[in-house]
Amino acid sequence: MSADARFFGHAGPLSLTTIAAAVSGAFDGDPERCFSGVASLEAATSQEVSFCEAPRYAAALRATRAGVVLVTHALAGQVPPGCVAIICASPSAAFGKVALLFHPRPVPQGRIHPTAVVAPDAVIGEGTEIGPMSVIGAGARIGEGCLIGPLVTVGPGVVLGKGCILHSHASISHAICAEGVVLHPGARVGQEGFGFTLAPDGRFETAPQLGLVEIGRGVEIGANSCVDRGALVNTVLGEGTRLDNLVQVGHNVRTGRGCIMVAQVGVSGSTVMGDYVSAGGQAGFSGHLSIGDRARIGAQSGVITDLPARAEVFGTPAAPIREVFRSLQVLKRLTAESRHVRKREAE
Amino acid sequence: MSADARFFGHAGPLSLTTIAAAVSGAFDGDPERCFSGVASLEAATSQEVSFCEAPRYAAALRATRAGVVLVTHALAGQVPPGCVAIICASPSAAFGKVALLFHPRPVPQGRIHPTAVVAPDAVIGEGTEIGPMSVIGAGARIGEGCLIGPLVTVGPGVVLGKGCILHSHASISHAICAEGVVLHPGARVGQEGFGFTLAPDGRFETAPQLGLVEIGRGVEIGANSCVDRGALVNTVLGEGTRLDNLVQVGHNVRTGRGCIMVAQVGVSGSTVMGDYVSAGGQAGFSGHLSIGDRARIGAQSGVITDLPARAEVFGTPAAPIREVFRSLQVLKRLTAESRHVRKREAE
Amino acid sequence: MSADARFFGHAGPLSLTTIAAAVSGAFDGDPERCFSGVASLEAATSQEVSFCEAPRYAAALRATRAGVVLVTHALAGQVPPGCVAIICASPSAAFGKVALLFHPRPVPQGRIHPTAVVAPDAVIGEGTEIGPMSVIGAGARIGEGCLIGPLVTVGPGVVLGKGCILHSHASISHAICAEGVVLHPGARVGQEGFGFTLAPDGRFETAPQLGLVEIGRGVEIGANSCVDRGALVNTVLGEGTRLDNLVQVGHNVRTGRGCIMVAQVGVSGSTVMGDYVSAGGQAGFSGHLSIGDRARIGAQSGVITDLPARAEVFGTPAAPIREVFRSLQVLKRLTAESRHVRKREAE
Repeated sequence: MSADARFFGHAGPLSLTTIAAAVSGAFDGDPERCFSGVASLEAATSQEVSFCEAPRYAAALRATRAGVVLVTHALAGQVPPGCVAIICASPSAAFGKVALLFHPRPVPQGRIHPTAVVAPDAVIGEGTEIGPMSVIGAGARIGEGCLIGPLVTVGPGVVLGKGCILHSHASISHAICAEGVVLHPGARVGQEGFGFTLAPDGRFETAPQLGLVEIGRGVEIGANSCVDRGALVNTVLGEGTRLDNLVQVGHNVRTGRGCIMVAQVGVSGSTVMGDYVSAGGQAGFSGHLSIGDRARIGAQSGVITDLPARAEVFGTPAAPIREVFRSLQVLKRLTAESRHVRKREAE
Repeated sequence: MSADARFFGHAGPLSLTTIAAAVSGAFDGDPERCFSGVASLEAATSQEVSFCEAPRYAAALRATRAGVVLVTHALAGQVPPGCVAIICASPSAAFGKVALLFHPRPVPQGRIHPTAVVAPDAVIGEGTEIGPMSVIGAGARIGEGCLIGPLVTVGPGVVLGKGCILHSHASISHAICAEGVVLHPGARVGQEGFGFTLAPDGRFETAPQLGLVEIGRGVEIGANSCVDRGALVNTVLGEGTRLDNLVQVGHNVRTGRGCIMVAQVGVSGSTVMGDYVSAGGQAGFSGHLSIGDRARIGAQSGVITDLPARAEVFGTPAAPIREVFRSLQVLKRLTAESRHVRKREAE
Repeated sequence: MSADARFFGHAGPLSLTTIAAAVSGAFDGDPERCFSGVASLEAATSQEVSFCEAPRYAAALRATRAGVVLVTHALAGQVPPGCVAIICASPSAAFGKVALLFHPRPVPQGRIHPTAVVAPDAVIGEGTEIGPMSVIGAGARIGEGCLIGPLVTVGPGVVLGKGCILHSHASISHAICAEGVVLHPGARVGQEGFGFTLAPDGRFETAPQLGLVEIGRGVEIGANSCVDRGALVNTVLGEGTRLDNLVQVGHNVRTGRGCIMVAQVGVSGSTVMGDYVSAGGQAGFSGHLSIGDRARIGAQSGVITDLPARAEVFGTPAAPIREVFRSLQVLKRLTAESRHVRKREAE
């Protein structure tokens, strides 16, 4: 399957020289031969470029009908005859570059749709595109070359750096974003955090939520994910952090650089993470924790204590992953023994 | 309580003959007697139709003041005097049919609201209604008799079959839908999947997300749920699959026919399911798994291995449900014993 | 950090007399001295007001440079010299009041934006503001002084009491709200519940979803949370109940007064809660349960049985929290013993 032309832009055909140059890769073949797109090892035709990075895909590599394969040096010997091998240090990263050559990302058209409602004092950068029905609040400052989709709200005072992309239905308020931030459809940034006090009459009164959200360069926030603004300090997402869909980030949370939160992760208020922390799907963090650099939290884990750098935890409450699996083994053995005892007693 | 006329359309009154004919049910009563609506056993008046399917509701059945009850043959003897019994194989399904007679679903009015922004080359089927502020992209093809609510986006090139319903605030891009697909409010379909490679400078680069979402006939996607488009293959939801609210479906996932995902389920990328797989609320699946037909996954379970057809699993990591509960019993017993030992030692 | 004037309204400076009067607090200092805002103990300057409620923040209190601190009687002795102490029973609640003096909430401007689409027979209360692109359905009745943000939908027939706030992108249908209800961005209220029957041909047919959502006074529903309407009875959220972001409430659920559901909690259909039930993040409830007043459910717990009043549970399946932690201890000990046995056997 190559990319469907109804949905993706298309450039090309492109010569082997052009392709190899983009990935700084060595090859042995006709430099003028041209190719039309990218595809998986299984689906690629002789007109298409594919890639193979891991030895576990070696069988698919040997069977591919692709015209070109981006491969590591180690796997190059398994590229079938007639298929050109381009040797790369990281075939998957190289494949991403080649895919962008054939299917460049949409470029903002510098047009503000006539149905958009833009406050008179909002500042819109050169080349920025604003889609139908979007609403830009008073005093907002949007950088150059941003792409704001349809039905988006950018609240009063919000600052967006250059080249940000806000997909349809996203909303952002009370926030300052660096360059290249991406909000996927329906992402919610900057709303009030969940904090309140109990009044004497039994009613809850919302506590002051007077902080902002600070979003670093290249951060991406997934579809329908939520990032609340801070209470008395800011909520901060460090440079390059990526949130998948339906992730919850509470007020005052701070992440370092390059953190990864898989879908449906929840981070409670005031938890602070180092750099490159990763959390599997549906994992949760209590509030006010400190999580060290490069800690890895397994899917569905519930973290209720601070974690040191490079911790690898799993389970609820989260514990070192080896211990958790050892305990599961022990429990399994005890359960099996218990059955034997019962059987013997019944005899 | 009968349905509130401010919110639901209303037909009737309807005669016993009409009602019984709709459900092919046998009855013994005045065929011309008329009824005004539907209600639960507890709330129904003598003007209303109710139903009873399960023996556990027999007491409510005996006490009902409903005018008509749809019942199984087995329960017919417990219908109180003065109440007409209509005998049906499946009273709950029959009740659904009768409810639709009294409260027909809204019918699309074939009107494109003047505030909608429809691309000049989009094709809109006969009788399709498009609500205020909705945005239909270039080259989209929308079938006959669809109902597109307010503030919806249909991206460029998207194809919708006949009779699809897109509720308010839904978004769909990079997708091909069969007939009768329903997106509930705020559902997100077709956005980029969560895939990236690590560049040498420590930045993440998004991997190509060049696939689509293929949605089968009659699929329903709940409020604020997310279905990402494929990377190099398509994400596929098989005919009749139903996702509840806040469900996450990653890129390249494939479900068979009639799968059921209760609220807040998460399915990681490239997992493939057979037909009629069901997952309880907040269950999660790792990526690249194969789940057999009619497997049943308990609420909050975390599936990290392939599952055979008709597996019934629970827990994290998910295991056969009997084993899990047996282990919980064993652990409970050991915990109780441990307390006894401590008590004795303390004496 | 004081609140950023680009994002938050600002009143003041305010005198010590005004501040102390708002919180009915006693103080010893120059009643005419003026202050400019609020901040945390760590960030406050001599122009700002802070608070300290818990002894664990005593060190921060002693080090603060705040001009005023709201404190309990017990902590008053630790307020540093030069800083005015205002003695209050509940410093955190008092701080909320002072913050509102300096940063009053936005007041609805009584203006219907010209791009909003309001049905001719909708009734809009005095002073209510409706933002750009919002859609108000036929027969809706919106009370006085409501604030409806941009891109909101209020469905036909919906009733909103006085002073409700619907943030951007929220949707509400099939619902009756009391005064002061708040929907945060992207909240979904009133959509169809997840109920269906299996037809003989293997297709699912949606069961009648003919109930409404009833929302009590002062209820708040978080960003992208979902509350489905009832099937044959109403879904009810009792007065003062607060849902955080991404919470799911199924059809027919009823909560009492003042219930708290932290982010990503899921409540299955027909479960009924008493007053002041609280559920930690990502907790789940099976359907048809009865949960007693003031029950406390730990984060990520899975409740599958009824709970008595004041129960404190944890884990999946949820059990009394002490038992769960005792079992975890026992398992940990057994696991450690198992390692010793293996080590000895290996020697």
